[in-house]
Amino acid sequence: MKAEIITIGDEILYGQIVDTNSTFIAQRLTRLGIEVTFRTSVGDDIEKINQAISHARARAELIITTGGLGPTSDDLTKKAIVKVFKRNLIFHEEILKKVEEGFARRGMIMPKINQNQALIPQGSRIVDNDWGSAPGIFIQEDKLLFFALPGVPLEMKTMLDNGVLPILKESIPRSTTLHRRLKTTGIAESAIYEKIEKIVKSKTLVKFAFLPSYLGVDIRLTITSPNSKESEEKIAEKERKIREILNEYIYGTDDQTLEEVVGELLLTKKVNMATAESCTGGMIGAKITNISGSSKYYERGVITYSNQSKTDLLEVPARLIEKCGAVSQEVAISMAEGIRKLAGTDIGLSVTGIAGPTGGSQEKPVGLVYVGLSSKDGSFAQEFRFGEDRFPNRQRAAQAALNVVRLFLIKL
Amino acid sequence: MKAEIITIGDEILYGQIVDTNSTFIAQRLTRLGIEVTFRTSVGDDIEKINQAISHARARAELIITTGGLGPTSDDLTKKAIVKVFKRNLIFHEEILKKVEEGFARRGMIMPKINQNQALIPQGSRIVDNDWGSAPGIFIQEDKLLFFALPGVPLEMKTMLDNGVLPILKESIPRSTTLHRRLKTTGIAESAIYEKIEKIVKSKTLVKFAFLPSYLGVDIRLTITSPNSKESEEKIAEKERKIREILNEYIYGTDDQTLEEVVGELLLTKKVNMATAESCTGGMIGAKITNISGSSKYYERGVITYSNQSKTDLLEVPARLIEKCGAVSQEVAISMAEGIRKLAGTDIGLSVTGIAGPTGGSQEKPVGLVYVGLSSKDGSFAQEFRFGEDRFPNRQRAAQAALNVVRLFLIKL
Repeated sequence: MKAEIITIGDEILYGQIVDTNSTFIAQRLTRLGIEVTFRTSVGDDIEKINQAISHARARAELIITTGGLGPTSDDLTKKAIVKVFKRNLIFHEEILKKVEEGFARRGMIMPKINQNQALIPQGSRIVDNDWGSAPGIFIQEDKLLFFALPGVPLEMKTMLDNGVLPILKESIPRSTTLHRRLKTTGIAESAIYEKIEKIVKSKTLVKFAFLPSYLGVDIRLTITSPNSKESEEKIAEKERKIREILNEYIYGTDDQTLEEVVGELLLTKKVNMATAESCTGGMIGAKITNISGSSKYYERGVITYSNQSKTDLLEVPARLIEKCGAVSQEVAISMAEGIRKLAGTDIGLSVTGIAGPTGGSQEKPVGLVYVGLSSKDGSFAQEFRFGEDRFPNRQRAAQAALNVVRLFLIKL
Repeated sequence: MKAEIITIGDEILYGQIVDTNSTFIAQRLTRLGIEVTFRTSVGDDIEKINQAISHARARAELIITTGGLGPTSDDLTKKAIVKVFKRNLIFHEEILKKVEEGFARRGMIMPKINQNQALIPQGSRIVDNDWGSAPGIFIQEDKLLFFALPGVPLEMKTMLDNGVLPILKESIPRSTTLHRRLKTTGIAESAIYEKIEKIVKSKTLVKFAFLPSYLGVDIRLTITSPNSKESEEKIAEKERKIREILNEYIYGTDDQTLEEVVGELLLTKKVNMATAESCTGGMIGAKITNISGSSKYYERGVITYSNQSKTDLLEVPARLIEKCGAVSQEVAISMAEGIRKLAGTDIGLSVTGIAGPTGGSQEKPVGLVYVGLSSKDGSFAQEFRFGEDRFPNRQRAAQAALNVVRLFLIKL
C-alpha cells in the first residue's frame, strides 16, 4: 500500500512550526509495513490544497492530511475536500452535541463559530476527537482511503492511533520490513563505525544507518524480506554481534529513552535517587519525572543555581567552592553527597558545569561539566568536555548524568 | 527566488526523526523573502537522491540539501552530486587538516574513514563546519545556487547562518513579505477568534493564522506588498487593534519565549525568584535556566516530588498535606511561601498537580494543577484544569506557572 502524507498550513512552509505530524504518521505507517512514498507541505491556500489532494488522489491508495480543520477562517481543508471529492456538506446534530459537550466539560460555553465543525462531507465518516473540537473525516472511494485529521499534534496522534490505524490494519497485508534501533551514548559516530565496520560491510540483507543527536548515536538495522521469521533471526544475529563489541555503550533499543532505562534499573535494583543540578537547571529532574510512576524511585531534587544554595541545601563548604571553583570534581562530589544526605536516598546524583556562552576560562572552558554520584559504597565524579553552545551542552550534560547512573546501576 | 529544500535520510521517511532541518531552513529563507516552493524528503538511496536533486535542479534557483555527508557508508549525497553535476571528487589536503584538528581539539584521534571528508567535487567551494567533521559543499552553476549541508541540526544551522545566508543575501532583492506573531497563552483559539473576528474579517492585505500548541495560541499576521514601509504600518495597525482587545493574554512577539519575557521582567523590576516544583519535576527551572544570564534573577529551585520533601525543605505542615491533599490551593501557597523563605528571594513560585495517567479521583481529576506565588505583598494560588494526558499536562502546567509570574510582574 502506497501512502502520501499532506501537511497543511502556511506555518510549515514559513518554517514557523516543526512538521512533527508527518514524522509521527510516517512512523506509524512504516511500522504497519505501509510505504510512504511522498511527503508534501502546502500553505493555507484553497487552490494549493486542492492541487495537493488531487495529485495524491491520482497516485496513492492512502492519503492522510493534517491541519486546516479548525473553526477559524484560515482552516480550509473541508472546502478542498468538497471540491475534490465533489460532495456537499451535511449538518450533523450529534456532532454539534459532542462539540458542545467538550466545551462544557472544560467549563466553557461553545463559541458560535464552532458550529461549523458539525458540517461534514456527504458519505464520509467521522473520526472522533477526544482532545479538541474538530472531528476528523474519513472517505472511502474505490481503492482509496482518505483521512483528514486536525493539525494539533495531540489530537491528531490520538485520532490516528484510535480511529485510523484500526481501519488500516484490516486493509493491508502483514508487514515484511523490520527495524531495530540500538541506542548508544558516550561514543562518537565514527568511532562506532570503526568498531563495527566489519559487521556493517559483511554481505547481508540487513541495512545499517547511523543517526547522531545530542543524546547519542542510534544504530538502525533494517531488513526487508518476505519471510518475517528469517528477518527477525537475521536482525537478532547482527544485534548480538554489535552488542558483543559495543556492550555498555548501548543503553536501550527502539523507542526507549535513557530516563526510562534508568527508571527500570532503579525499580529492579530497589534503589531510589535524588538529584542536585546546577548547569542543567532541572532538566534531569524533568526527564526523570516525565516517566509515569517515577515517584517510586525519585524522591526529590534541588536546583542549586547559586553558590549560596549549594552551601545552604547541600552543605558544600563555601571554602571548597572558593578553593576549587563551583565547577570542579570536588564540588560535584560534595553536591552528590549533600543531596544524598538531605534526601536520605540510596543514590545522590549531581551536575555542575559551564553551559556557556559566558563563564569560561582558559583553564575551565565553556562545555566543562562534572557529574557526581554518591552511594553507600562511596562517591566519585566524572569529567566531560562538550562544545561551545549552551543548548547542546545542557542537553548533553543531562544525558551524560543519566548515563553515569545507568553504568553505576548495571554493576550493582 | 524560488527555493527547494531536500532532506536526505531513511530515518525521515520511516519517521524515526523529526525533520527540524527543513523547518529551520524554511524559516531563514522566508525571513529573507525567498519563497520555498517545495519540500521533499528522500531515503538513503543513491538513485532517489539523484532524482530529487535532478528534479529540483530543473525548477529552482536555489537548492539546499541536508544529510548524507557523514563518513559512514550510508552517507551518499556526495556521490549523487558527482553524478548529477558531472564532476569528479578532488582530494584537499587543507580540509583533511581541519578535520584532524577538530578531532585533536576534543582529545581524539581521527578515525581513518573521516579521510573521505577531504574529497570534494571539482569546482565547488567549502562551507566550513565548526561543530563537526563534515564540511558543506557549495556549487554555483549558471543561475543555480546549490548547497549540500550535513544533517546534524547544530552543524547545519551554524553553517546555514554563517556560510550560506551571507551568500544568499547578496543574490536576492529586498524582502517584501512581512510576518508578525503575537503570542498568547491562557485563552482558547476559538475564544481569541470570537474576540477579534471583526479585525480578522475586515478587508485588508493582512492575512491571519492561528497556531495553537501546548504553550498557547500564536496569532500570525502576514502581509505581502511591494512597499515595505506601508506593510510595516499596516501590520502595526492591526497589532495595535488586537492588543487593545487581547491585552494581557499576549505575552510576547515573534520568537520570544515566555521564559525570556519573564526573565526580562525580573531583571527590569529588580526582583529575583526561586521555584518549588512537584508535578512539573524541574521543567520550570529547566526553562528559566535555558536563558543565558538567568543566574542574575533565578536563585534556586527544589523538586519536591515526595510529600516528605515538601515538609523537609519547604516546611509544608504534614497535617496540611493530610487534610487538604498534596494537590490543593493550601499546599501550593505553603510551598510558595516555603521556597521564598528558604531561598530568601523576592518571589517564590510553586506548582503542584496531578499529571496523570494515575492519581486522579472524582473530586480531584487528572489535569488539576495549582500554581502558587508568594511575595512580600502576600501569597495566592490559582487553579487550572488541563486534560487527561501526562505530557501536555506537564507542559501546560509549566507554561501556566510562568504566566502567573508574568501577570504578577507586569502589575508591580
